[in-house]
Amino acid sequence: MNETIRQMMAHRSIRRFTDDPVPDEHILEAVRAGQMASTSSAVQAYSVVRVRDTGKRAALAELAGPQEKVARCGAFFVICGDSRRHRLLCERAGAAYADTFENFLVSVIDASLFAQNLTLAFESLGYGACYIGGMRNDLWRVRQIIDAPAGVYPLFGLCVGKAAESPGPRPRLDPGAVLFEDAYPDDAALLEGVGAYDRVYEAYLRERGARPAGWSEAMVDKLQEKTRADAGLFYTAQGAKLG
Amino acid sequence: MNETIRQMMAHRSIRRFTDDPVPDEHILEAVRAGQMASTSSAVQAYSVVRVRDTGKRAALAELAGPQEKVARCGAFFVICGDSRRHRLLCERAGAAYADTFENFLVSVIDASLFAQNLTLAFESLGYGACYIGGMRNDLWRVRQIIDAPAGVYPLFGLCVGKAAESPGPRPRLDPGAVLFEDAYPDDAALLEGVGAYDRVYEAYLRERGARPAGWSEAMVDKLQEKTRADAGLFYTAQGAKLG
Repeated sequence: MNETIRQMMAHRSIRRFTDDPVPDEHILEAVRAGQMASTSSAVQAYSVVRVRDTGKRAALAELAGPQEKVARCGAFFVICGDSRRHRLLCERAGAAYADTFENFLVSVIDASLFAQNLTLAFESLGYGACYIGGMRNDLWRVRQIIDAPAGVYPLFGLCVGKAAESPGPRPRLDPGAVLFEDAYPDDAALLEGVGAYDRVYEAYLRERGARPAGWSEAMVDKLQEKTRADAGLFYTAQGAKLG
Repeated sequence: MNETIRQMMAHRSIRRFTDDPVPDEHILEAVRAGQMASTSSAVQAYSVVRVRDTGKRAALAELAGPQEKVARCGAFFVICGDSRRHRLLCERAGAAYADTFENFLVSVIDASLFAQNLTLAFESLGYGACYIGGMRNDLWRVRQIIDAPAGVYPLFGLCVGKAAESPGPRPRLDPGAVLFEDAYPDDAALLEGVGAYDRVYEAYLRERGARPAGWSEAMVDKLQEKTRADAGLFYTAQGAKLG
């Protein structure tokens, strides 16, 4: 196994951090590496706001759960899809920026490709990281905290810092459950193997001291809840055309 | 610079491939590494269809441009956001899957994080790769080709294979243009440095033998076009709730 793949396989989200800061030069190195991820026709439709201000960090930690790690980790980032610079360039050129779902989608994909390189780069530099979907609990408040103008779409947060815990990696579905050949499988084939994975997943939770549940049960619990129901409304208010 | 970051910095999209196949064991290794990317609450809301069938490859190559590399590269993949398994699990449990924009967005982010690890893993194994947004030129046809049922959202393709060219990396925006501290900058600050980047970008295109244009000009050309205007309609037809 080569070093890059070994680094990927070693991933586990870190949720407890030491007080050690993350030096600026590491942040710059990780952002540069993040930027080398592919981007649709070089649009680079993303930006990242590092939040240092203690009050802002506390407010973000609160709306995210609360999640103390958002306030306490070495460095915290809000990752955004971003069409702001494109809109300004079009305006300057007397052209109309095309508000299409395609352009919004590209910004989400671009930002996510960037973020995954960024995260892996931080991990390779010896830090732990955790994505924070909880930013989407209150996107209006996030917008206010980071002063995001129209065209900027906060998507998720990222905690980075020295790990103060050492959890094992969370088991994933069997590769055969996500990799198909030539055609998508039928429903019976798609559910094959879920039972075995449920048991592995439950054992993993039990070992971590969490309430044990199979993956299926955890998914049904989570995915029947209409959470963050105004996310689409928010992105529309920021200028995205959805649908 | 460590090996993982060196690998990221060496990225350039490869658009010409040799006829060498990609062995199954490399595909499995890269998919496993892809799966270790973070996933929102372990939902793993993605799947990947490897297309081997020659007729299907030809059809995908055609709708993507045409782009010959889609037919000719060593291995071609369609990356999908995927809620199908979740929907079936909810149904089995007598629960209603929550069709929310949040759940669609999570599948796009999850699939993209997976894809970036997958791509970098392939690169670390000595392959070149190129994302193919052109799948979105005709999502209805892609759906038909890979038999994607409701709940499956094809997002983009991925060409992988041995490189038959050796282009230099495409220059990116300065890190300072995408990394901000505590607050999003004002418009003047956001456009600062674009002129210098325009010149770097134009020189890069000239060196590659492409029509030279500054980045601003290229962006305005691209982003004022209402391309792929029915993407939102397609994802809605597949079961996503947009907006």
